[in-house]
Order: sequence, then C-alpha cells, then structure tokens
Amino acid sequence: MVRENPIPIRLKQARKKAKITQKDLGIKIGMEPSSASGRMNHYEKGRHTPDITALQRMADELGVPLNYFFCEDDSAAELACLIDKMSEGEKELLISKLLKHGAD
Amino acid sequence: MVRENPIPIRLKQARKKAKITQKDLGIKIGMEPSSASGRMNHYEKGRHTPDITALQRMADELGVPLNYFFCEDDSAAELACLIDKMSEGEKELLISKLLKHGAD
Repeated sequence: MVRENPIPIRLKQARKKAKITQKDLGIKIGMEPSSASGRMNHYEKGRHTPDITALQRMADELGVPLNYFFCEDDSAAELACLIDKMSEGEKELLISKLLKHGAD
Repeated sequence: MVRENPIPIRLKQARKKAKITQKDLGIKIGMEPSSASGRMNHYEKGRHTPDITALQRMADELGVPLNYFFCEDDSAAELACLIDKMSEGEKELLISKLLKHGAD
C-alpha cells in the first residue's frame, strides 16, 4: 500500500500554530539564513524529507513530540501532542484505563 | 540537544512482539532474501535509517502505526498503538476528555 508521507502536512500545521516563518524555523534549527526559507519550503512541499536530527530540532522548536510528524490522521496527531505533555504516571494511568475500558 | 534516534529500539520491540525474524520481515517488505537479514540488522543497530516507505511497510507488517517508530518513551509508544486501534469517534472523545480533565 502506498501512502502519503505525513511529514509535509504536519510540519506546516505545527509551524503555522507556532506562528513562525519557514525562514525563521530553518535558522533556529541551524540552517544558513540565505537557504533556510527554500530548504524548509522543500520539506513542506514533500520534495525533500528532513533527516531525524533535523526533525528532532524542529520538534523541539515547535513544541511537538518527534512522533507528531509521523501521525497519519489529525486526531492521532492531536493526541500525540496531549500525551507529550503528560507525566510518566499520567501516561501509565491512561494506558491502564484504555486497556480496561477503551475510550469510554 | 542531541537525542537518540528511537527507530532501532522500537523496530526491535515491535518485531519481537510480532514474533518474526529480521530476515522474514525484510522479505515481507520487499527485500531480496539474500540481503534481508543484514539490512534489517543495520536498521535495528541504527547503522542505517530506513526511509519512510520502508517504515510504512514495516508498520503495516508489524501492526503498529508509523508514528510508533518515533515515540521517544515506552509509554508514549504503547499509547500510540492503543490509539491506532480506535475509531475516529473514540479518538475525538479521548481528545475532549483529555482537554477537559487531563488523564484523570
């Protein structure tokens, strides 16, 4: 099954939410100011795929977890962000609730 | 901040859980039988990083969502798998509960 690469849409979504330009985000993760805008635009258009180190830096700058960029639907992406803000204890509690009762 | 690439540990974890060898998984995602074991071993050792198409194929074979491979802690990884089994309605319900009450 050939599926879409979720990175472009997630990256654009998180960048817009963080109200930062492609150029500024590129500079913050270490790109040269002269090429930052074009390189980030390539990532958002899906022409190039960022490597994992660049993705980790973008995740940190945008306040999302690394796995957010790979969520294939919007609700899973939103849940990934909510889970990222939880403590280890809260995550374990949620796991046990979901195993017992599902989402009810 | 330099962080570990989570793919190797997640891949090995999901493959062991699915009780499949490196070679068999490699063949299932389209590798040549003669190189499948070595190539999969490189991925699990972190010497090479699979591209997103290979990761999507592995996710499908192992019954995990693509974002599972990028979860940086075990509890987030387990939650990603649980969320992947939910319907869209269940995910939306969980989002609204977490926004209202947190993990309680």
